[in-house]
Amino acid sequence: MRTVAIAGVGLIGGSFGLALRAAGYDGRILGVSSPATIAKATAAGAIDRGVSLEQAVDEADLLLLAQPIHVILETIDRLSGRMKPGVLVTDVGSTKRRIVEHGRAALGASFLGAHPMAGKESRGVGAAEPELFRGRPWLVTPVEQNELDALPHRQFLVWLKRIGAHVIVCSPADHDRWVARSSHLPQLLSTTLARTLDEREDREAILGAAGPGLTSMTRLALSSWPIWKDILETNGDSIAEALGEFQAALSTTARALKEGRLEESFARGAQLAGELLREP
Amino acid sequence: MRTVAIAGVGLIGGSFGLALRAAGYDGRILGVSSPATIAKATAAGAIDRGVSLEQAVDEADLLLLAQPIHVILETIDRLSGRMKPGVLVTDVGSTKRRIVEHGRAALGASFLGAHPMAGKESRGVGAAEPELFRGRPWLVTPVEQNELDALPHRQFLVWLKRIGAHVIVCSPADHDRWVARSSHLPQLLSTTLARTLDEREDREAILGAAGPGLTSMTRLALSSWPIWKDILETNGDSIAEALGEFQAALSTTARALKEGRLEESFARGAQLAGELLREP
Repeated sequence: MRTVAIAGVGLIGGSFGLALRAAGYDGRILGVSSPATIAKATAAGAIDRGVSLEQAVDEADLLLLAQPIHVILETIDRLSGRMKPGVLVTDVGSTKRRIVEHGRAALGASFLGAHPMAGKESRGVGAAEPELFRGRPWLVTPVEQNELDALPHRQFLVWLKRIGAHVIVCSPADHDRWVARSSHLPQLLSTTLARTLDEREDREAILGAAGPGLTSMTRLALSSWPIWKDILETNGDSIAEALGEFQAALSTTARALKEGRLEESFARGAQLAGELLREP
Repeated sequence: MRTVAIAGVGLIGGSFGLALRAAGYDGRILGVSSPATIAKATAAGAIDRGVSLEQAVDEADLLLLAQPIHVILETIDRLSGRMKPGVLVTDVGSTKRRIVEHGRAALGASFLGAHPMAGKESRGVGAAEPELFRGRPWLVTPVEQNELDALPHRQFLVWLKRIGAHVIVCSPADHDRWVARSSHLPQLLSTTLARTLDEREDREAILGAAGPGLTSMTRLALSSWPIWKDILETNGDSIAEALGEFQAALSTTARALKEGRLEESFARGAQLAGELLREP
């Protein structure tokens, strides 16, 4: 892996470049982004220089698409028919079925879907950091058995481990089902909670009387709509299923509230929440 | 206000003592708690010494009940018939209708319900800090007009302002309605989310693929059941109403997801979440 190219040098793409360098990678790191971002990313040491997408695919052994989902889909179209043998294209999109389907149709076995479960509230390459992926899951979603045995794939996974990511292999469908529960449902709960409070006539009184718990439960509601538009469009069925499950669970909670038997729910909820807090 | 007594010298009670001292209060501060807590609270400077509840009511001008709700109700019973004129009893319980009804029936106009919207994850007097209430709302729930004009009430409110609390006056019913939305509903959403994930067969896979968003949405699920048992028992009707409203809102979200029009929800949610984050 002598040359890595990163298309979209924002928080995730920039952190990947910094992480590679910090882990001892001494090949070239190319970036595909706007001139302003290239300048910032080069100054930060996340990439060596900026190139066009065409140059990137000509020169790189690994091309990481660290773009919004709809841009990843467009980039895959632009790469179609231009791939050299032995080049691996992978992505960081938050949903996987649509992207992997598209990537495989256009690029065949050169495409490997993936999704690092890392992030922070600040965005852009200015917020990038070499340790962003340490101890965090990096889901990898092959569609064929033995797909990960190919040399470019093996090299990619070695570097993921070197930057401290915890590689998890699963199908695109399992990925989308899991993140619908672990990420997309929590997002819609936070947004719905914040939206309903925003619409109330006694909004000011409720905000005035709010404690820190409400702030933590509505924090996700600050998430960027353009990013979530893509996620909701490409994982809508799984998310609708997760919402339906939660509505049933909420009915159970409402009944248990009425009957004064929520102790078991609190015990199980605390158990799971404690595990999440203890994880890195 | 020459003598203040604090019954229940935990995080809130202890912080009230420390806050009074930091704000220049030079009267006596008595504590009613277990011997171990009294020792810790005295060493921390939150109180001057420990006394029995009976001594507290004999000596204090202000008695703050900083106990769990059901203990506040029991303490009110123990105070009944023992009150000297001019003594104010107030509390910090998280629900107000039941406590105020009980307090007024037993102690008459000597009782003033209140609820500081402050806290943190650590509990006990060891976590107490003089700045805990600064910039935070302290809801005060009189039941009669002009009730707050009495001298002991005026003195209490002056000290609340001196310790930096933001005093909000409302009825016990408004209080319970507001906190049902701002605190109790978010708690049940967090607990329900964590509980349903805990019950799933693919629990480990979902936790393995979780990002920081799930951790923040399940953090409240760690809350102590004994405290919430009291809250749910004394504000069940308002909470059931808030849950019903949220279930309707979630159905709206599910429809909007299907129809691809959640942009407005994200905009309104982000608006409210941003306001909460900007507040102290």
